[in-house]
This record gives sequence, C-alpha cells and structure tokens, in this order.
Amino acid sequence: MNLLDRIQSPADVKALPEQQIPQLCRELRAFLVESVSKTGGHLASNLGVVELTVAIHRVYDTSKDRLLFDVGHQSYIHKILTGRKDQFSTLRQYGGIAGFPKPKESVHDAFVAGHSSTSISAALGMAHARTIRGEDYDVLAVIGDGALTGGLAYEGLCNAGQSGEPLVIILNDNGMSIHKNVGGMATLLSKQRVKPGYLRFKQFYRDTIGKVTPLYNALHAVKENVKDSVLPDNMFDDMGFYYIGPVDGHDEPELERILRWAKDIRQPVLLHVVTQKGHGITYTEREPEKFHGVGAFDPKTGEVPPAKPCFSDAASRTLLKLAEDHPDLVTITAAMASGTGLEEFAERYPERFFDVGIAEEHAVTMASAMAKQGLTPVFAVYSSFLQRAYDMLIHDTALQNLHVVFCVDRAGIVGNDGDTHNGCFDIAYLGSVPGMTILAPANFAELEIMLRRAVAELTGPVAVRYPRGGEGAYQEAHGEAAVCLREGTDLTIVSYGVNINDALEGAEKLESAGISAEVFKLGMIHPLDAQPILDSVKKTGNLLVLEETCRSGCVGETLLAAAQLNGICLKSVRLLNLDSGIVPHGDVKTLRRVCGLDADAVVRAARDMLKEQNP
Amino acid sequence: MNLLDRIQSPADVKALPEQQIPQLCRELRAFLVESVSKTGGHLASNLGVVELTVAIHRVYDTSKDRLLFDVGHQSYIHKILTGRKDQFSTLRQYGGIAGFPKPKESVHDAFVAGHSSTSISAALGMAHARTIRGEDYDVLAVIGDGALTGGLAYEGLCNAGQSGEPLVIILNDNGMSIHKNVGGMATLLSKQRVKPGYLRFKQFYRDTIGKVTPLYNALHAVKENVKDSVLPDNMFDDMGFYYIGPVDGHDEPELERILRWAKDIRQPVLLHVVTQKGHGITYTEREPEKFHGVGAFDPKTGEVPPAKPCFSDAASRTLLKLAEDHPDLVTITAAMASGTGLEEFAERYPERFFDVGIAEEHAVTMASAMAKQGLTPVFAVYSSFLQRAYDMLIHDTALQNLHVVFCVDRAGIVGNDGDTHNGCFDIAYLGSVPGMTILAPANFAELEIMLRRAVAELTGPVAVRYPRGGEGAYQEAHGEAAVCLREGTDLTIVSYGVNINDALEGAEKLESAGISAEVFKLGMIHPLDAQPILDSVKKTGNLLVLEETCRSGCVGETLLAAAQLNGICLKSVRLLNLDSGIVPHGDVKTLRRVCGLDADAVVRAARDMLKEQNP
Repeated sequence: MNLLDRIQSPADVKALPEQQIPQLCRELRAFLVESVSKTGGHLASNLGVVELTVAIHRVYDTSKDRLLFDVGHQSYIHKILTGRKDQFSTLRQYGGIAGFPKPKESVHDAFVAGHSSTSISAALGMAHARTIRGEDYDVLAVIGDGALTGGLAYEGLCNAGQSGEPLVIILNDNGMSIHKNVGGMATLLSKQRVKPGYLRFKQFYRDTIGKVTPLYNALHAVKENVKDSVLPDNMFDDMGFYYIGPVDGHDEPELERILRWAKDIRQPVLLHVVTQKGHGITYTEREPEKFHGVGAFDPKTGEVPPAKPCFSDAASRTLLKLAEDHPDLVTITAAMASGTGLEEFAERYPERFFDVGIAEEHAVTMASAMAKQGLTPVFAVYSSFLQRAYDMLIHDTALQNLHVVFCVDRAGIVGNDGDTHNGCFDIAYLGSVPGMTILAPANFAELEIMLRRAVAELTGPVAVRYPRGGEGAYQEAHGEAAVCLREGTDLTIVSYGVNINDALEGAEKLESAGISAEVFKLGMIHPLDAQPILDSVKKTGNLLVLEETCRSGCVGETLLAAAQLNGICLKSVRLLNLDSGIVPHGDVKTLRRVCGLDADAVVRAARDMLKEQNP
Repeated sequence: MNLLDRIQSPADVKALPEQQIPQLCRELRAFLVESVSKTGGHLASNLGVVELTVAIHRVYDTSKDRLLFDVGHQSYIHKILTGRKDQFSTLRQYGGIAGFPKPKESVHDAFVAGHSSTSISAALGMAHARTIRGEDYDVLAVIGDGALTGGLAYEGLCNAGQSGEPLVIILNDNGMSIHKNVGGMATLLSKQRVKPGYLRFKQFYRDTIGKVTPLYNALHAVKENVKDSVLPDNMFDDMGFYYIGPVDGHDEPELERILRWAKDIRQPVLLHVVTQKGHGITYTEREPEKFHGVGAFDPKTGEVPPAKPCFSDAASRTLLKLAEDHPDLVTITAAMASGTGLEEFAERYPERFFDVGIAEEHAVTMASAMAKQGLTPVFAVYSSFLQRAYDMLIHDTALQNLHVVFCVDRAGIVGNDGDTHNGCFDIAYLGSVPGMTILAPANFAELEIMLRRAVAELTGPVAVRYPRGGEGAYQEAHGEAAVCLREGTDLTIVSYGVNINDALEGAEKLESAGISAEVFKLGMIHPLDAQPILDSVKKTGNLLVLEETCRSGCVGETLLAAAQLNGICLKSVRLLNLDSGIVPHGDVKTLRRVCGLDADAVVRAARDMLKEQNP
C-alpha cells in the first residue's frame, strides 16, 4: 500500500502523477477487499467505481462541490480517499463509520442516502439552491442503472433535464441492478451501450467546430440542430440533457478528460459510464451478486461462510409450499429476490414470479389489480422500502379492501445498514392503512402459521412483519392474537416478534429478584385485541410494553388508550420502544442494549416502576 | 337529446349507425355541460374524451374488458354511456354517483382511481391475472400526458413494455396537465406529436406487408428490423411497446379503426391520441384550466361565480408577504399551482417557484436538498397527495432534520371528490416522521401566524395543515400549542383546526342544557403538549376529543396515553374521529353529520358520557 498510505485527502489524489493512477486503483481494490472481508459490507459495487471515484476526485473538490451517490453503498472508495481510510476497520459497526454517505461524518458527504433513486432530485435541489443564492460550486450525482428503474429517478430526470441548471448526472451502467435489471429502461440502455459512434461524433464536434469559437451558448441552437439531423434520438437528449456516452468506466484518464468536458458544459449533462460490477477481482467479477452485500469472507478465495437460517428463508419455504395448493398465488419483489428469499420461488414458478425493479409503488398498485382480478399476490419487501408505497397501500389496496399479502421483511432494527434501512415505522404507517391486518411472528414456525393464515384465511390487506436475521430461544408456535406465556402478579409485560425473547429473559431475571411478571406475546398487532392484556393489568396494575418500533402509533400507546377507554387506571407504565425511530448502525445486540430494549432494560424498567409503589 | 335518451347501455352505442356518431357526441357534450353546470365537477377533461370514450365502447365490452381511467375524473362520458345518465344530477353528492370510477357503482368501473399515474400498473396487474388464470378479456388504460409525469407511470411503462402481455395504453395527450405540462416528458411528447409520418408508415406497412401473411408473430423480428432502420427511435418502442400514433382524438371513425388494430396486436401497445381539453365548447376551449374542476356555472356563457375566500388564498397571501423578507424562501407545487393558491407567487417570483409536475416524491427530495444548501423551501400540497412522499419525508427530510415547510392543504374531509381525496391520514403519517412539527390553524389569521412561525422561527420539518374551503365563525387568532377558549367544570372538549367551530357550538348548546364544558383548541398537534389538557381533565374527569382524522395515530389516543403515563384516570372518554379514514363523497356539512363530527354529535356524546356518571 505504498501509494494509498500517503493519500490523506483528495488533494493528494489530485497531486498524483497520471502514471501512478493504475497503481492507486490496484491498491484501493486490494485494501477494499481486505477490509470488507473482515467487516462485511457492499463490495462488488465499490469495486466497479474505483476509477470513476478517483477521476471525480481529480476533477472536482468534494469539500465544496456536491457529490451525491445514489443509494450510497458505492461510496466506500470516496470515503477512503476523503480521510476515512484509517477508520475502515470500524465500517458499519456501532460508533464506527457508516456504510452510506453521512454529512455528519464528513464535509465530503453531501447528503444522506440509503434508499434508491434520490440522487437526481437531490442534485437538482442543490443546483437550484446554488443558483438562487448566487453561490459557486458544482453538483454531480452518481446513479446506477438499477436505481434508474425507480420512478423517483425518472421524476428527477424530467425536472433536471428541463431546468437548464449546470449539473452532471453520471449514469453508472453496469447492466444489472441488485438482482438483474428489469424492464424497459434496461432495453433502452442496452441499445445505447452499443452506439459508440455517438460519443465519437460529439467529441469530433467539440474538437473542431466547438473550438472555432468559445461562444458555446450562442452556438447552442445551431449545434443542437446539427446533432438532431445527424444523430438518432436519445431519450436523455429529448429530456433536455446533453448526453455524453457511453464511456469506459475503467479507463481513468478518459473518465477524467470527459468529466472536465462535462463540468465545462454548464447545462444539465447526462454522462453514461459503463462499468463492471466487481471489476478487478476474479471471484467478484464472476459472481458480483454474491458480493453485493456480504458478511465476512475469505479474501483470497472469496469463500463466503454458509448463511445462518433466517426469517426470509422461512418465508421462502412457506411460499413454496403454499404455491402448490394455491395456483392463484403469485409473488412480487422490487429487485430484492435474493434479499427476501424469493430466488427458489422464481426458479420453480417463473410465470408466477414478478421482479418489477426498484419500483415499490408499482409493485403495490399492480398487486392490488391482480387481487381485484382473482389472484393472491404476495409482495415480499423490506419494511423501510415499503414506506415508498404508503399511498398505494391506501389508495389502491385498502379503499377496495383487496386481498394483498405483504411479507414485511427487515422489520425493526436491521443493524449494520443503519438509520436509512431500519424498519421502525411499519407499525405506525401500516396501522393507519384502513382494514390492514398486521401479524408479527416471533419465530420461523410462527411465520409459517401466520403466512399460511394470511394467504388462505384472511381477507383484505394483510402484512406479516418479521425481522432481519434469525430466531431466538423462543420457539413455541402460537398463531393467536395474544397468548399468555408466563403468569405473574406484579406486572404485565407485553411484546411481539423476536423481542419476546428479551421479554421472557427479563421476566426470568425478575423472578430471581422476587418480582412476578406476567408475559403476553401478541401475534396480531392490528386490529389489536386488547382484552387479554386489559384483564391482566386489572390484576397486576402495572404495564410494560417492549417493542421495536417508533413511539408514534406504537402498540403501547394503543394499549394505554384502550385501558382509559375501559376505565382501567394503571399504577405504573413503561413503554420501551425506539422513540423517534432513528437508530444508528451497529450490530443488533448492541443497538438493543443502547436503545434500552434488551432483557436488562426490561429488568431495570420493571424494578423502577415497582420501586415507585414500594419505595 | 334524441339519441342520448335512447342509450341505456354500451350495446346501444355499438348498435348506432356510424353516421349518427357525430350527433351522439354533440348530445353528450350538451348533456355534460348542462349537468356539470348545476352539480359542479370536472368538465374540460371530459369534453376532451367524448370521441375517444365512444370509440372505446364501440370496440370493447367494458362489462368484461377492463377499462382503467387514470386519475379517473375523465370518466363522466363513460358513466353516461354505461347506464348512469339518469343519476347524473346526483354527481358527487352524498349518496349519489361519484366523480371517479367506483367498482361498487358499476361493473363497468374496473378499479378505484383518484390519484394520478396508477393506470398502467393496474392494467399490467389485470393483464397478468388474466393470463395466469387463463381468462379471456382485454385490458386498456387511458392516461393523460399530465399523469405521465408521475414516477409511478414510468415504473408501470417499464414493466408493461417488457411484459409481452396484450394490453393497450392509450396516451390521452392534450399537451397539458392541470396547470401546464412540465419537464422532460412534455418535450419528448411534443417532438413525437409532429411526426405524423410514423403512424402513416405503420399503417402502410400493415396494409401491405402485414397483409401478405397473417403470421404476425413469425414476421415480428423482421418487421422490427425494418422499423428500426427506417424510423427514428421512440422511447416507447425502446421500452418494448408497439407504438401507434399520433392519432386525432376527435376523429371517432379513425379512433375506432385504430383501436381495433391495437386490440388485434396482442402485445403491449402504446396508442398516442392527441385531444383538446375542453373540445367542442367555446369557453372551455378558451380556458380549459378554469373548467378543469369547477363549481356550478352559467352553461350559456361559462360565467363562474367568484370563489369564496379559502385557506389556500390565505396561505398564498402569507407566502407572498414572507417572500419579501426571506430571499431564500422558494415554493414548490406538484402540478397544483392553482389548487394550492401559488399562481400569484409564480407570477411575482418565477425564479423562486417550481412546478415539478405530478411528482410529489421528487418535490420532497428536491426540497430537502434545497434546505440542505440554505434555502427555505415551502411545498404546498394536498394532504392526500403528500402520502406519495411518505418515504422521502423520513429518508430525505427527517433523517437530516432539514427545515422544509409543508403547506398541507385539503386536510380532513374534502367533500365532493370523496374517499380518494380526503386528507384523513396526515396526522397519522406526519406524526410518525421523526422531528416533524404539525401546526393546525383554525382560521385564516391563525394560518398566517403559524406559517410565519414555520418559515421564520421553527427548525426541522414543519407541516401546517388546513382544510379545503373557508373558515367558520371562530376567528380569534392564537398561535399557542394549546389554548383554553372556554372554561367549564363537567367535561373537557379538545379540538383543532376548523373543527373547533363545532366544539364551541356544541359547548354552547351543552350550556343551555346545564352542562359546563371546558374547551381547548390545539395549535400544535405534534409534538403534543398534553399538560394543559391533563390539568383540565384532572378537574373535569371527562374528556371528549373531536378531530377530522383517522383513528390510528389520532390526538385523542395520544392524550389518553399521556393521561395514563401521568397516573390520571378518567371517568369517561369519547373520541370523535373518522375511524378507518374512509369517508365517501358529499358536501362537507353532510359528511360531518354522517360521521358524527358536528356540534350535535358533540352534544350527544357529552350528554351520553355524563349520563353514565349520573344515571
């Protein structure tokens, strides 16, 4: 790491002689693989943008120019080059650097990203702000072809193209999104990729006619007419962009040259860069999907330890079983076939499986229409991404009370991906969708029971919410709305999902301290059957609710309101939840401790509330 | 109305000799104008699709074929032709027919619509369902160029184009959305509009080569190659559609001919139809925007009575004043400049006004980036449409605690537009957005105070929510979080926004009955300062909360939970709210009565709760 060790800031990148760049890129790749093989993280996408990121830092000054990474998991090289290399061993760990851009972490990170397709809109907003405030900086966004399948990206393109604002949208086209690219945009790009004459003509034009006079703007109209008559139409051109591409994304000197050109144009530019995901490392080039988001692995061989059983697998197994008896069952994913465990379903039932791209809105509207015409659609989606389809849940699914099943994966704290990915709001937003049933399995066996019920017995919209990762010690299977797992007299503890493990562990610890806790596990969160809990608190007088969701719309508040409506007055109450719903990155166990949601927190809260009564 | 009176069903439309169609269209226009001039409703868009709707009914059978109207306000002609002409005097009134498609109303209405850009996704879902279930019907969608600016439409296009499913997307291109068409898609379409050679080539091809052999599919590859080499690229073609157009949308025989062709193609077809909004009536052709959504008017002259003062105007006036002192203040609308009262701002400050098209998601992400770079963006948007940007509110605005102001118009019951347009969920979904402040002015004066505070004093995301229409009798101006408007001893009544009028009226009526009510008006809903209310209920023991929002996340439940957390036990409680949040169409006064939210409901509930205590 001769070169990389000397790179403390982007200024050092700029100062490197051109002939040392290939070595820098090699060292960046080696460092990245070594580091991510220990911490886990997003690998393949970062290997794909090594040259692009280096070129950007040689052309722009990201301490004032605003660089926006779409989704943001491809910002590792950027982080390494902007003074965060020495912190890379803390990547995605509690208190360490994040796996996504965070303005709080560095002035070089322009905007929070984590969800897809936001960068063009953000770039345009920043460009407008710059112009209105009369400031002087450049704005550029790096967006993958996968992110371009999202409707938000299209809305951004339509507006940015027509804005006239100088900004550069770099389309990082690796011919695949997380799974594989889907839909019309993919076809469109693939056609574009094989038109090298286009770039060459623009370059020729710039080198000849463009050089005759520097009055670019005066000539603009003429130039566009020439282009229109000589070149085939291009969607991006039609939208108002100056389209440049396709450019080889691993040719750093060429990228630098073209970036300077793009920066110079002073109007909306779309720069089409073709990269290879996982570029430069044999095993990531061969299996880029495997190394999209990955845990620790062997950096020499690329061997990845077998994954532990998780809720997504359990959902997958159940859906495969259900598909046999329910020919009308279809599954839908928004570019997350692997993450949500639908790959086997896709292989077994290709005609009943739909990967819509990063398009959660479309997924919900399409699913609703499928339900209207007699299918039973199951949309498997991360809790945090389903936020995108809140309006469609109400407008398209709920107003017609259509039977769509939502496998809400990654509910609660997700861990290392951090605040943009936590599923902390689904209880609140799904709870407000008219007629929505929310089921919360606590382990794999319950997931099977509840998903079966969601598909075969219930009507209207049904969400089955479960967390990232595996089950805990609690493995009994109950499908009921509420079940008493442990009787007690001093206080009532209510929880659901995997958090029931900490509730039970807490109750056990309390017993050793002479406190008798009654523990209820909820299976159905919405509509909520409060009666068994009310009966219990009538006896104990004290209520503690443990849940991994934001406070707004939480089950705890609903139970308190139910108690008031039933004339029950509690002696003492503790609501343990995620409050605002903003939880940083780190491992789940640590975060549960920090957020006060583990067994010890239950014990502390219980002792505290009982102390009030017997001081 | 010689002809129209004889049209009882689409079969009668099909049976008409071709030469009578122009007369039918004339009668339809006359009937429409006469009827809407009395009931109010969407006029110009319906005048634009008279020939198109007639042609559709002559080619398709909408009792089994699925016809989807995007947004849905252009479905009047369809309703008239499908047996609902005699009910047209009840349009948009309580118990009458709806202004949007409702499957509950007729088998000819395929799907609920009211929000924009859903039709392509819905059509694809239905086409997939048909194929998987082995059924036999056609699916077609009618989508305006305005609706095509929404990201959901693009997601639908990308997926539908590649699906291979036989379906027909009719692009009803009138060169304008509600205000004016914005962005890249508009440019793209305007280029397409002037390429008549395209359609003629396809027709020629079909009439010659296409007739030589009926083996369309076998020849398909060859055909596409010919097309690609002869014709310029077209975005829709590139996305996988068979593009036909542009076609004159007021030439009914041509439309019929082309529809039969499109129906015949058995692959995804995009049929580009050019229509004129307000076609056939002098004053609507001249001012189509004025007659987009309109109240009662003079059918002869097109004279529209002056509008009554409304909250949108009050917001507009305040923003104009604020803009003088705040050069960093910018306003954003999603194709609703007129509806949200931003037209004057747009004229006065064109460089600080942004109409992004029907793109609420983009609006929120862009606004967040503007705020990050030092502007103070104000996004004026209907409560129901802001649902589209729930994820952006959390991910782009809240995670960075950015100061974006939301003028949340049409909050609560909106009246005649009905269930798709009610603002019944904003308290719930905005309440779950981390760090969101929600202010609720009760009249114009309070709106000015609160909007001023939102812009100039508060930080982080701030929503100011106000209803459609005007203020009531209550016109005092208080900016405080909670203010006691009336002291009393028997019960505490809490309300906010214009509903305070019914709370006060109810309290007055109760006084005559010897019941003393203390009335609190909340100015800030979130974060909620419960203390003044808790102090009051300690005294009265009884709480009644009146609010125009769904029950989930309502202020009433939060107050009940707060009481429990503070060890306060209430004798009796009544939460008056909109329960599920689904409220049908009708005038607001009737709906408040039906939903139990008027002064009489307050009186009933209060008497009832006190009777329990003194039977």
